[in-house]
Parts: sequence; structure tokens; C-alpha cells
Amino acid sequence: MRDLLPEETRERRALGRLVLDHFALHGYKLVTPPAFELAEVLERGLGALDPSDVLRFIEPESGEVAALRPDMTPQIARMVATRLGREPQPIRLCYEGTIVRRRQGRARRHRQVPQAGVELYGEVPGTALAQAGDLEILRLAGSVAARLGLVGAVIDLGHAAIARSLIEPLPPALAAEVGEALGQKDGARVERLLAGRPSADVLARLGDLHGGGPGEISADALFARAEPLLAGTPAEPGLRELAALWTAATRDPARALGGATLRLDLGEVRGFAYYTGAIFHLLAPGPGEPIGAGGRYDDLLARFDAPMPAVGFALYLDAVAWAREAAGVREAAARSVVVAERPDARDEAAAVVAALREQGIAAIAHPGDDAFAYAAAWRYTHVATAGGEPGRWRAQIVGAATNDVVADDPEALARALAASR
Amino acid sequence: MRDLLPEETRERRALGRLVLDHFALHGYKLVTPPAFELAEVLERGLGALDPSDVLRFIEPESGEVAALRPDMTPQIARMVATRLGREPQPIRLCYEGTIVRRRQGRARRHRQVPQAGVELYGEVPGTALAQAGDLEILRLAGSVAARLGLVGAVIDLGHAAIARSLIEPLPPALAAEVGEALGQKDGARVERLLAGRPSADVLARLGDLHGGGPGEISADALFARAEPLLAGTPAEPGLRELAALWTAATRDPARALGGATLRLDLGEVRGFAYYTGAIFHLLAPGPGEPIGAGGRYDDLLARFDAPMPAVGFALYLDAVAWAREAAGVREAAARSVVVAERPDARDEAAAVVAALREQGIAAIAHPGDDAFAYAAAWRYTHVATAGGEPGRWRAQIVGAATNDVVADDPEALARALAASR
Repeated sequence: MRDLLPEETRERRALGRLVLDHFALHGYKLVTPPAFELAEVLERGLGALDPSDVLRFIEPESGEVAALRPDMTPQIARMVATRLGREPQPIRLCYEGTIVRRRQGRARRHRQVPQAGVELYGEVPGTALAQAGDLEILRLAGSVAARLGLVGAVIDLGHAAIARSLIEPLPPALAAEVGEALGQKDGARVERLLAGRPSADVLARLGDLHGGGPGEISADALFARAEPLLAGTPAEPGLRELAALWTAATRDPARALGGATLRLDLGEVRGFAYYTGAIFHLLAPGPGEPIGAGGRYDDLLARFDAPMPAVGFALYLDAVAWAREAAGVREAAARSVVVAERPDARDEAAAVVAALREQGIAAIAHPGDDAFAYAAAWRYTHVATAGGEPGRWRAQIVGAATNDVVADDPEALARALAASR
Repeated sequence: MRDLLPEETRERRALGRLVLDHFALHGYKLVTPPAFELAEVLERGLGALDPSDVLRFIEPESGEVAALRPDMTPQIARMVATRLGREPQPIRLCYEGTIVRRRQGRARRHRQVPQAGVELYGEVPGTALAQAGDLEILRLAGSVAARLGLVGAVIDLGHAAIARSLIEPLPPALAAEVGEALGQKDGARVERLLAGRPSADVLARLGDLHGGGPGEISADALFARAEPLLAGTPAEPGLRELAALWTAATRDPARALGGATLRLDLGEVRGFAYYTGAIFHLLAPGPGEPIGAGGRYDDLLARFDAPMPAVGFALYLDAVAWAREAAGVREAAARSVVVAERPDARDEAAAVVAALREQGIAAIAHPGDDAFAYAAAWRYTHVATAGGEPGRWRAQIVGAATNDVVADDPEALARALAASR
């Protein structure tokens, strides 16, 4: 739990606007679920929640158990099932909010994770491709990364059913261990754990089947290796779906993924239990963890009695902010002015403040001898001086020794400053 | 706890932007405290919390008690004391977030209350007026109401110390009853409760001392009645402060309160325990409850070991939205387009979608025979038809039978639509 001070909040707010405006441009309508939710709704979507993983409380009046959501998708699914289920499909929604999760690693305290995401529910009509929704969401993930200035973004694409269909038949404790080893791409451990079982060889080699990016084994070669390996196994249908999606996503360079590099990972096991089809992680240099993740979860809406296909993804905004910083992308601060106020010329200073605000420029009056220090501390861009006579109304950039704008009256000063960028 | 669907979210988001942009224009920097807070911090600011009034939970790792905040001001006070206390004063901060309170009345379930507010901490230099901060905050409350289009806004101004200084010497149970009766302007009950006590007459008459608005008893007449009544009582200093603030706020019509009507209420008792000076409620027709409230709380920062004067106010955004609806103010939806897609002309539809997004207009492709129904259900403003030849690229307003824009190619169509408003 931490505070965001003014500079960080300004950057974060600009980031939120960029992301939501980009989603809106693509037809995704913003909705707002409540910040906490009945535990029953979350468990319906996510399966049984580990009590130590979720912050819960009892509503004193109703006795119902509520929880701080570890994921927003179950809430959106409930909202669609109960209030938007009769609207024509596809249903395109987006959201921004904070989830609460336990930190990985040693200090496993809960933390708030701000995220923004999209949900695409129902049939996506008008295309020949069975996975039109997957493709739309992949493109949106790539284009939002480009919009955010993350030139080195990578989409790691996998399929939830490939590894899962091979792991699920195992006894639960063993399945968990194999899943963990696979997540660490530790083929030797997978083989040791499964020694003698028929799926040992397939699962041990699955972790090696990744690539498709620049300088890596080609996707064609990967699929050529995977097909004989998985033929006749329960993983075969997932592999076929993934290959079709890969082909569609890489077919048309003009409509490529916003410049993001697409890579394949057939052994992908990360992610919530609800994924049923394509899954992906969005990566960018800097944070050392994914900046977003998503995929298909065709069973989820049925748990809320409104069965329909579903695909979506979420951006983790802390990680995105980190990646943008690493990429040297900054949102410039709007200009803002401290008007230096002389005790004998309060009205003049007030006139400048009013004229600046009229032009949409943030402005306050402050005693003249302290104006530059105040402006620097609170990150105002300019200090203005009310001159009293023509040519003496000035605005100076904080930290620079020269006048940025000189004018004949408050209104002219404000207009010049508004126009000067 | 309720969901906000797309239309409501769009309106609410526009409202949030208007309010925060207005605060920013006046030098208030946005900060973001965490959504939940150590109960200890909240109690330091608010006094002991009634256990049934606050939703609390225990953080499993630390064993610390956290709570969903019923008020954001104590968090901002903690933030200033721990992280911004050395910055030059005055410290101007604003915030937007959700608090959790119990609903008044019979069904006292908790509800989320979205609010946005400002905090002005420290000395406000450069003016002769002792209460410069009160005046700045009153003006900001009035001007934000005007910015929101609430022409009938009223600011009810009082002083926390007037009634409190008379009530506080009473035994606690009686004090609570008198406070409640005073809140209901029930002078007869106040008199009954206090029968025989020296403050009975003063407190019973305090509830009548309100007015100052159009068609009401004048403020001058109210002060003329109040002065002899409160002379020599502990309420006298508060009355003097209030009179000085009233004079300053009404002196200069050109810098009046954004068109809001200022009224006086000497018997005002509502509000959190932390107020120490001027207090006010912002009212507007419609919601039947205040759309905002604020005042001075000079003791609060000392509770966080950073003593400094403080004044602020918060808008209750649900009530504000209601008042705007009652005033007939609506944020127009940006234009957004469903591009009708023919199975034999997918590329043409895709070209229109791309051209529209390039112009910043939200657009999706949808099968042609269903495009108008889809557009109407999801509140798109236009349906565009990809024509294939010059003069055949059209955009039609949803619900209207005529073409809004006709053009020769996708780019021209998009440019014309972007320029048509």
C-alpha cells in the first residue's frame, strides 16, 4: 500500500487516460464495478480462493462475506450476465481499477495493483476465422503497447489447453509440481517427476518449445517439432488452434500487432485457472515482469448462467509505468504559473491569475520574494510578474534566466503563454 | 455496492475530469492515497471509530487492522505529515476516490461514496485576511459548482466552534441529544432538554439564526441578533471569525463565489468531529442532500505530528451527478461509428475503421444487416457505409434517416466526420 505523490499521480493519470482512450477508440465501453465484491461471486469465477491470499471481511448488516478483488474479470462477467446479457453481441467492455494481490517472493504482503483491461464477450461476427476475438484482442494488446511508446514490446503467445490437458490427468499434488517445473522451463525436473509415465517425454520437451521471435527458432520449425510430439495426445486440438491463430496474426504485415514482436511458448502454464484457449503475456524491457496478460476463457460466463465465449486482457499499470520510464517516455507537464505578487499590487497579480485560468493554464498568486522557490518545489513551469505598465508583464521559465513571454497586459500575457506551445 | 454501466461511467468519468481539471487550474495537485488504510491512521484523524460503522479486516501477514476509509482527509494529512511536510506552504492537494460509509435511514448497509476534494494546508501568505484559506476554499467551492453548470448552487456557511463551544460543557449523553435536536432545528426540544441550564435559551435560539440568502432575513440582521445573544459566551470568538469571513466573501461582487448564493447558518452542527473553524455545505437542487461539504480543521495535522492550519472540502460525486441531471446538464457523447461491413468488402470497411481511428473517432466494423441495431444498442452516434466508389462513402446519424456526411474515400469521410462538430 503506498501513496502516489503529485508527480507520480500526474504521470499515472495521463497513462490511464491514454490507455482508456485507446480502448474506447476500438469500441470498448468503460464500466465500473464496485471496489469490493461478494466472495461468492469471486469464487464462482476464480474457483476456491486460498483464504490467506484474499482480504475478506464480513458486512456487519448482512453477515455476507465480501472480499477485495484479486481480479476484475469475474465482476465484469457477473455484470454482463445480470445486466448486459441481452445486448447484441459482441459485447466490448473495458475497466480500470485496483486489485489486491499478494506479492510474490519472501515478503508476501498484500499490495494494490492498478490495472486496466478489456473484455470481448460473445460471438465476433463477420469473419471467416473461428478465433476472430483472439486476433482482435492480440492486435489491441500490440497497438496499445505502441500507443504507450513501448517500442520493444513482445507478446508471448501460448494455449492454456496444451500443457493443462497433459497435466490434468495426473494426481493433483504431482500435477501442481509438474506445472511449477514447467513454469520454470525445468525439463529435467519434469522428467524426474514423471519418470515412467506415458506423458513424461512430451511434457519434459514442451518447455523447450518456445521461440518464433527474431534470432530464435522459427515458428514454422517449432510447429513442425510440436505436431508429431503432440499428435494423438489431448493437447492436439489446442496446438491446432494456436497454429491457426499464429498464422492469422502474422499473415498481414500491414495489420500487424502495432509493432509488437509475437513469440510462441507452447509450454506456457501461467495464468488463472479460468483460461481455456489462447493465452498471452505482454512484455517490455524494464519491469522484469509482464506488463499485461490475457487470453480466452470460454467457460467463465457459463458459471454466471450466461454462457458465451470470452476473451480479454489486462495491463498492469505499475509495470507499464516502469516500462515507459525505461523507454524514456514521459508525459510533459502542462504549463502552470506562479504569479509573483507584490504587496502593493495585489489586484494586478489577481488579474494575471484570472487571465491565465481563463486560458486553461493553472495559476496561483504567491509573494514575489518567494515565488521562484515555491514554483520550483511544486513543479510549476513558469513564474509571471505583473508589471503595471505595457511591456512589463512577463513570464519566465522556472530554472531558466530568460523571459519566455513579454506582453502589454494580463490577457495578452495569458494568450501568448497559451500559444507558446 | 453497485455497478456503473457504460453510459453512467462515461458521464461519471467526464464529471471527474471536469472537477479535477478545475482544481488543477487553481493550483491543486492531485495525489492518490491507497484504497485502504491502517485503522490506527483513520482513528488518529477521526477519533475512535464505531466498529459497526467501518469495514475492517486484518492483514494476514502483519496482523495489523486495516479499514476501508470512511473519509480521505486523514490519509492526506498522514501523507503530508510523512512525505510533504518540508515543502513550502501553502500545500495545495486534491484527490478523487471512493469512501465507504453506512447509508442513513432504515437499511443502513454500507455503500461506496465516490468523492473528489481539495486540501489547503499551511499558512496562506500575502494577504491581510487571517482567514485567507477559508476564502480561497469557499471561492473554489462556488466556482466548481458554476463550472459544473449548477446555477442554483447554495453555500450554507457556519462555524464549528459556535454550537460546539456551548454544547461541549454538557454531559456527553445530553450533548449528543442537544446536537441532534439542533441539527433538526428543533428549538423546542433543545429548550426541553436543557430546561433550567444557563445555555438553554442561547442554544434554543441558535437554530433560528439562519438566512442571508435572497428573500431571507439579511446577514446584517442575523449578526445583529447573534452578537448580544452570544456575547460573553464561549461562542463569541467563533461568531467574530464567521462575521469577518462573511464580510470578506461578500465584499467584492466581481470575485464572488462563482454565482453560488452564500447563506448563513449559525446553528450548524453537522460534520466530522475534526472541524475547528468555518464549516460549510454546498447544496444544489435535485439530490435532497448536500453535494459537498468542507471547512477548517486546524488540529488535524498536529495529530500526525506536523501541526499546521488546514482547510478543505469534498464533493460527493453521486449527489453532484444527480444535481447536474436535475439541472439538465449533460456531457455530450463523442461521436463514434459502426462501419457496416459487407462480406464481399471487408477491406473497404477495415479502411474506414482505420481512417476514423486515425482521426480519433471510435470505430468498429459490424455486419451490415445488423449495423443499425448494434449501433443503437451500444450508443454509437453514426453508422458508416463503405461505398467502393467516389461519393458513395457515407456516415449516417443513428436514429436519423438522412446522411450526415458523404465523401469520396475513407480518409475524406473520417476527416469530414471529425470536422462536422
